[in-house]
Amino acid sequence: MRVGLLQINPTVCDLRGNAFRIVQSAEKAFNDGAHFCLTPELAVIGYPPADLLYYRKTVEQCLEAVKWIAEKTAGMGPVLIGSPSIKTGSDILFNSAFLLNQGRIVKIFNKTLLPNYDIFDEERYFSPSEGPGFFEISGQKVGVTICEDVWNDNDFWEKSKYSSDPVKALADMDVDFIVNLSASPFSEAKHKLRLSMLSSLATKYRLPVIFCNQAGGNDELIFDGRSAALDSTGQVIAAAEAFKEDVLLVDLDDPKKNIISCSDFGLEKEIWEALALGLTDYVRKNGFNKVVLGLSGGIDSALVAALAVYALGAENVTGVLMPSPFSSQGSIDDSLKLSRNLEIETITIAIDELMNSFDAALSPVFSGMSRDVTEENIQSRIRGNLLMAISNKLGSMVLATGNKSEIAVGYSTIYGDMSGGLAPISDVPKTMVYAISKWLNSNGKVLIPERIISKAPSAELSPGQKDQDTLPEYEILDQILHLHVQCSASEDEICAQGFSRQVVRQVLSMVKKAEFKRRQSPPGIKVSDRAFGTGWRMPLASKCSIVTKK
Amino acid sequence: MRVGLLQINPTVCDLRGNAFRIVQSAEKAFNDGAHFCLTPELAVIGYPPADLLYYRKTVEQCLEAVKWIAEKTAGMGPVLIGSPSIKTGSDILFNSAFLLNQGRIVKIFNKTLLPNYDIFDEERYFSPSEGPGFFEISGQKVGVTICEDVWNDNDFWEKSKYSSDPVKALADMDVDFIVNLSASPFSEAKHKLRLSMLSSLATKYRLPVIFCNQAGGNDELIFDGRSAALDSTGQVIAAAEAFKEDVLLVDLDDPKKNIISCSDFGLEKEIWEALALGLTDYVRKNGFNKVVLGLSGGIDSALVAALAVYALGAENVTGVLMPSPFSSQGSIDDSLKLSRNLEIETITIAIDELMNSFDAALSPVFSGMSRDVTEENIQSRIRGNLLMAISNKLGSMVLATGNKSEIAVGYSTIYGDMSGGLAPISDVPKTMVYAISKWLNSNGKVLIPERIISKAPSAELSPGQKDQDTLPEYEILDQILHLHVQCSASEDEICAQGFSRQVVRQVLSMVKKAEFKRRQSPPGIKVSDRAFGTGWRMPLASKCSIVTKK
Repeated sequence: MRVGLLQINPTVCDLRGNAFRIVQSAEKAFNDGAHFCLTPELAVIGYPPADLLYYRKTVEQCLEAVKWIAEKTAGMGPVLIGSPSIKTGSDILFNSAFLLNQGRIVKIFNKTLLPNYDIFDEERYFSPSEGPGFFEISGQKVGVTICEDVWNDNDFWEKSKYSSDPVKALADMDVDFIVNLSASPFSEAKHKLRLSMLSSLATKYRLPVIFCNQAGGNDELIFDGRSAALDSTGQVIAAAEAFKEDVLLVDLDDPKKNIISCSDFGLEKEIWEALALGLTDYVRKNGFNKVVLGLSGGIDSALVAALAVYALGAENVTGVLMPSPFSSQGSIDDSLKLSRNLEIETITIAIDELMNSFDAALSPVFSGMSRDVTEENIQSRIRGNLLMAISNKLGSMVLATGNKSEIAVGYSTIYGDMSGGLAPISDVPKTMVYAISKWLNSNGKVLIPERIISKAPSAELSPGQKDQDTLPEYEILDQILHLHVQCSASEDEICAQGFSRQVVRQVLSMVKKAEFKRRQSPPGIKVSDRAFGTGWRMPLASKCSIVTKK
Repeated sequence: MRVGLLQINPTVCDLRGNAFRIVQSAEKAFNDGAHFCLTPELAVIGYPPADLLYYRKTVEQCLEAVKWIAEKTAGMGPVLIGSPSIKTGSDILFNSAFLLNQGRIVKIFNKTLLPNYDIFDEERYFSPSEGPGFFEISGQKVGVTICEDVWNDNDFWEKSKYSSDPVKALADMDVDFIVNLSASPFSEAKHKLRLSMLSSLATKYRLPVIFCNQAGGNDELIFDGRSAALDSTGQVIAAAEAFKEDVLLVDLDDPKKNIISCSDFGLEKEIWEALALGLTDYVRKNGFNKVVLGLSGGIDSALVAALAVYALGAENVTGVLMPSPFSSQGSIDDSLKLSRNLEIETITIAIDELMNSFDAALSPVFSGMSRDVTEENIQSRIRGNLLMAISNKLGSMVLATGNKSEIAVGYSTIYGDMSGGLAPISDVPKTMVYAISKWLNSNGKVLIPERIISKAPSAELSPGQKDQDTLPEYEILDQILHLHVQCSASEDEICAQGFSRQVVRQVLSMVKKAEFKRRQSPPGIKVSDRAFGTGWRMPLASKCSIVTKK
């Protein structure tokens, strides 16, 4: 039995394009000897379709696309494709897998477990299936699951999220192997977890498990591909490429014929590749080719520039230097050196005169008041305005360069350095920005000038300013933020880990106050298990007070 | 039997403040002769608490607050209060009602039906109850429901959302009346629907229904209060104030003793009051007193200024005129006249010099290129920068003045006129902006100068510019937008209503292209049944193509 895994990179709602990709991949797999093929979850519409599913017409058009794929693959063999379906005579939607054969829809399987946490909102759109089903091919029973359906094993997980277990149900039906149509979003270290979970299932039920994952970036989410097949002992017998499209043929009977493409990456490379894919796809799927970003001489903009060059090519990246009287000569030199290393075009626009114009315009209003953070923000917003103007005129997308640590505590200017179509490293903490930069430099040519890495970080918005005048050391800050943001730890719980209460209280207060900025921030690329963005839904006007006993 | 409805306005996560309000209101109700009292849904933490519920410590602190309320009301009488609860020995949360009596938690009721559509995400946080329960007081059985629990009657609704019906379950238990702890968000016309639905339930089961709703604004959501009691014939026998806190005593045995406070408003007044409450609470709960906004001479900024004065008082509103060479003298005069009518302070800052500075700074980059929308956006972003600077320096919140029509089609500048802490009329279509303005003027003193209402709308970002150069007539535009945004109608479905395909296609394409702006827009105040914001979750990088038969 040979199974073709069509690890495609769909664009959300590009039904024609996605259908075409599915047919093309299926053709390749069948030509290579597949007996049947399967796609990722919701491959016809692309994951996540979000509120586009509220448009009944769109869901009907998905069905048209499914029928078109059925026709086009009629002469090839059976294909199991992910697409939404409507329960006849109702407006109930399912997240489904359509089995196509000989030009017809033979059977529809619906997803049983609907994730509704973090970035997932599937209960918003779909009704659950009563349970999973199987189909037969060449005398073998193929159990069909969709993504979350395999994520509820009560042996593997400390606590199970759902009361039913579709994998157990299929094992009870005596299936011969299990296939899983997935759109499993990337986060650091998830690949290993996923394989280990699938391996545990295979071993527990003594069943081969075949996992077909989406590839590509859709808005904030990266899908890392890495489709895989595991035999009934839990061994990986085939694995597709990481972070790109692939068509993987899995021979269940003769595993030696299989390919194991993706290898383990180190953490820095893993995040780097995810960010590059996210950046490429976000820019491309939004109809852009080129990007522009401000180069401050700091490490964040340097890393984003290097990433953009890796993702899009140097010819598609423009760096803009916008020095003010507070910019050090070192920062200008470092940015120019970076640009030479990366071979990107630069534009330099000094903002002194613009700052003077704002001072003059505002002096009647501000007379008698001392300078404060207002003037720092004006500078940052002048730069935002210049970048957006260049973007508007030249048709390139602005990249915002903020990292997760500064976005967490609000060490950034809304409508200023937070301006952009995408904030590629908004889910990368500052300490990881350093780690990736060092890894990048150690990885062949030194791209980011050493001084950018070694100097003390500064926003250079006032004379002699340093990040650490305002913020705790990044090593400390990032640990506190990890506990608070990823682990939902409270002040007391973080202090119990040995951090100073004063520092913890300061950080948590900054996180809360910055909520209004994050609400208006550009989308980022999720690489952690909790990113700001659609998976972070915090009230803005809230006041954290507690009842204390007297 | 007399029931006290504690229609409080909680601030999210202000556990101390909310607990205090509950105790204070209970004291009043018991002093006035209540036999027991009830609060709105989740009154202890305030609705919606969103991802604050992920903090286990916060939920534990809610329980402390519940116990504190139990102690404080120990000598008064039984109170039924809304708060989250944790299932013992697990991390499972319920949306609960705690029955407190004589200083103790007597019983806990959990919500059965969890809404997970529009702005609701309750499946994200809570597990459902198996079904509702009741308690006895003075020999009467009181059936307990929480918000959505009463919204699933299969006679009232064309289709029911859930398979179970808690009201029917309670009727089968022979309860004597039903109470409902609610946080039912306002939208236009919902009040009548809600009463009619409650009346239908009361009549169907021949049971009195007592509904206690939250009052106040929390972020985008307005809770209009209007708690009410209906007798077993479906008649309203008591009703609390609209759009404010209230303590309502309901005498079930002697309805003549009851008060019916809230009356029906016309649509314009209804929206006006909702917006005023939303604006007041958002500003106040975020720790601000004062607001600042740009006055363009157009109707949107005029209406927002009038609203802010109504909500916060003229002394807390500053209007900023920022004329450019494209601003007509008429617009300046109209803004000044408006400011005199409203008795607000104004600041005037001409932006000519700032525009020149940007032209000069960008001329080397833009040399040889013709002027386009770029220069219009620069103007708008200069104004955004000035407003934010005034906000930063003077500590007032910037109000963005965009209406729903322009936000829908992206007729606005991101980081320019879209800048602000709140966009009060972002859910009000342009035609309704006119209607409310006319209603306001007809309502005593003429506040908005007639010329602002009568002149053709213009952004005045280029010579002689008019909105209708770029957009369809607002009467047409708003109808198309209503069909597409509220009713999820597709191009074909809208055209079938008689609109020109070319216009519909243009509008839908603009709506799609503006998604990236909306993602970064300030929060608004939801007054329709579908607002942009948390209830609108659209992909950014999507491409709507369909498979067509050959």
